[in-house]
Amino acid sequence: MKKPFSHLLTFIIVLTGSYVCKAQSGPAAPAQIHTKAYAAMDAKGKLAPYEFDRRSVGDNDLLIDILYSGICHSDIHTVKGDWGQIPYPCVPGHEIVGRVIQIGKNVHKFKVGDIAGVGCMVNSCGECEYCKAGEEQFCTGNGGPVWTYGSAEGDSYTKGGYATNIIVKESFVIKIPKNAPLAKVAPLLCAGITTYSPLRYNKVKKGDKVAVAGFGGLGHMAVQYAKSMGAEVDVFDITEDKRKAASEMGAAKYVNTTNTQEMDGLNSKYNLIISTIPVSFKVEPYLQMLKTDGTMVLIGVPAHDQIPVVNVMALFGRRKMYHSLIGGIRETQEMIDYSVKNNIYAQVEVIPVQRINEAYQHILDGKVQFRYVIDMKSLK
Amino acid sequence: MKKPFSHLLTFIIVLTGSYVCKAQSGPAAPAQIHTKAYAAMDAKGKLAPYEFDRRSVGDNDLLIDILYSGICHSDIHTVKGDWGQIPYPCVPGHEIVGRVIQIGKNVHKFKVGDIAGVGCMVNSCGECEYCKAGEEQFCTGNGGPVWTYGSAEGDSYTKGGYATNIIVKESFVIKIPKNAPLAKVAPLLCAGITTYSPLRYNKVKKGDKVAVAGFGGLGHMAVQYAKSMGAEVDVFDITEDKRKAASEMGAAKYVNTTNTQEMDGLNSKYNLIISTIPVSFKVEPYLQMLKTDGTMVLIGVPAHDQIPVVNVMALFGRRKMYHSLIGGIRETQEMIDYSVKNNIYAQVEVIPVQRINEAYQHILDGKVQFRYVIDMKSLK
Repeated sequence: MKKPFSHLLTFIIVLTGSYVCKAQSGPAAPAQIHTKAYAAMDAKGKLAPYEFDRRSVGDNDLLIDILYSGICHSDIHTVKGDWGQIPYPCVPGHEIVGRVIQIGKNVHKFKVGDIAGVGCMVNSCGECEYCKAGEEQFCTGNGGPVWTYGSAEGDSYTKGGYATNIIVKESFVIKIPKNAPLAKVAPLLCAGITTYSPLRYNKVKKGDKVAVAGFGGLGHMAVQYAKSMGAEVDVFDITEDKRKAASEMGAAKYVNTTNTQEMDGLNSKYNLIISTIPVSFKVEPYLQMLKTDGTMVLIGVPAHDQIPVVNVMALFGRRKMYHSLIGGIRETQEMIDYSVKNNIYAQVEVIPVQRINEAYQHILDGKVQFRYVIDMKSLK
Repeated sequence: MKKPFSHLLTFIIVLTGSYVCKAQSGPAAPAQIHTKAYAAMDAKGKLAPYEFDRRSVGDNDLLIDILYSGICHSDIHTVKGDWGQIPYPCVPGHEIVGRVIQIGKNVHKFKVGDIAGVGCMVNSCGECEYCKAGEEQFCTGNGGPVWTYGSAEGDSYTKGGYATNIIVKESFVIKIPKNAPLAKVAPLLCAGITTYSPLRYNKVKKGDKVAVAGFGGLGHMAVQYAKSMGAEVDVFDITEDKRKAASEMGAAKYVNTTNTQEMDGLNSKYNLIISTIPVSFKVEPYLQMLKTDGTMVLIGVPAHDQIPVVNVMALFGRRKMYHSLIGGIRETQEMIDYSVKNNIYAQVEVIPVQRINEAYQHILDGKVQFRYVIDMKSLK
């Protein structure tokens, strides 16, 4: 999830100001942090090695040595400009787990050596009703949240987690228990919260019938969370290849939607449908599968020319539809704690950063099972 | 609201059975009830005088002498076959107020002389989860609710309120206080409940900002209810003619949507938008006017070829959309009681039945201010 060109944030100006004052009063300017990364140089979306300096570590910041970085479908959309123009070079990555290696003097929740997570956002206005409610993803101040990459920040723009390190304000960093399997935790920072949030929002409980449409990086998290909350979960995808995995994850039913007869007999079955389908699709047959008063949540954002339209009469019977976007920072921490407690993690294939372009192609071809995660040792 | 060809209802069979038994044991067969009405003979939708016999008054039935019958836009859609084929002759009318003139032996809530209301439904299965929850409009047994006209009933089909009388099962009849202004009450039985129900469902409260799009028969009820619940209400319509009426009804703002600049500055303003627009329209600009977590409710049902589609990304920010259909019998009674207590009625133009075709044309031409109501004395 990314929105380019969020506006300059006041806190950056303030930080810069205090830094200038200090520099005038004697001590050496805090060092900028050198970073090795992989970046897309243009909308062709090919990634290549790229080095740059991050800002110095401010009083409220953590410097995180990145251990793992998940690859999200939205990274691909963004670097290819599917959602609009972005600044290049673009360093994607918003499913970040690493070790804290330096902290600013006002940082209290973390110490050096702690494990930290960073998701889709690294800042927001902090003042609007949504920020105050802990829903920073809907921030309306200063042009919206500062996304982890591609958002305006000072006179530059943010760069993400396909990198050796990142600097983030403490209040946007998630605590990760040290004993957690860190490669499998990384995707939770986007895929986890994106699926956990609408399940909580809809108060999924024991006995509910939930369908998950699209069984990939997002979908396989949705299935696990919905199951853990007591729901009976059916899975919809366009391939036969994932039937076994769905069953192993506890799905009651797997529907290969390319076999139309498998779609029969499901009308008015579900309280909730979570669609992770990343391209245009026929929404109406899914709405028909909702019970009266049921809800269909769309997560993920297709490319501009791939957005479905829906006949509004398919919403007959108080069948609701809406789009859900990640979750706030507080809820992201809750999701991590819940995941660790319930042993819910992403199924990942760990790759070296040098295989990133191949991984992108596999994702576009539907060849990835669930989630690729980059082992950042490979870049160091 | 009407769905043709609901299935034969068990209670009808039971009633018929008991009647046959009685006939065999001596007493004369209960008389069928002769009725004068106006009916459409075909999908041209012209109404003409028509006489027929209703079933005899069963043990659980009321015979109601109809005093007033509102004209709903859906009557026109139905008789013209806009929603699908229907049986002819079709006697429309589901906004009925009248006086009880005969009761079956099991009727306890009403006595002869009481004022009674009948809305869109006259029966339902009574067994399904929706009937048990008092949401008979979503009945899933026996093919759904028995609508007041055009639904299968026994070996015939129901005929509505443009008639001198009607026979309805007690549990589908609404009590109307005798001191209420009866012509103005008639439209509440459809337009009232259709707007009251989604406002209650969304728990509209003091301080909420509500928009009502389409300021006709439904819209002017929505404005009054939303105001009475404490909301600030804006009104949207395509004409300048209704600006004064909106203001008089307490609207904070009236937007003539044909002046595009009047639509500016309203983004993210509303908690709730009730759309009564009876034709296709651009939904996305309205969704943009919702706050995050806001809801747009569609009421009314356009003709098949006039149903809008919506780009699902306009639902970004947990902006919800759904379609609401009238309300259950219990809620209809609550709505009548609420309306009388709060002095909320339809603004009506009372006409004799002989002007019905002219009234239909005025509705289609957008020339009716709010609601026509037929004075049934004109048919007697």
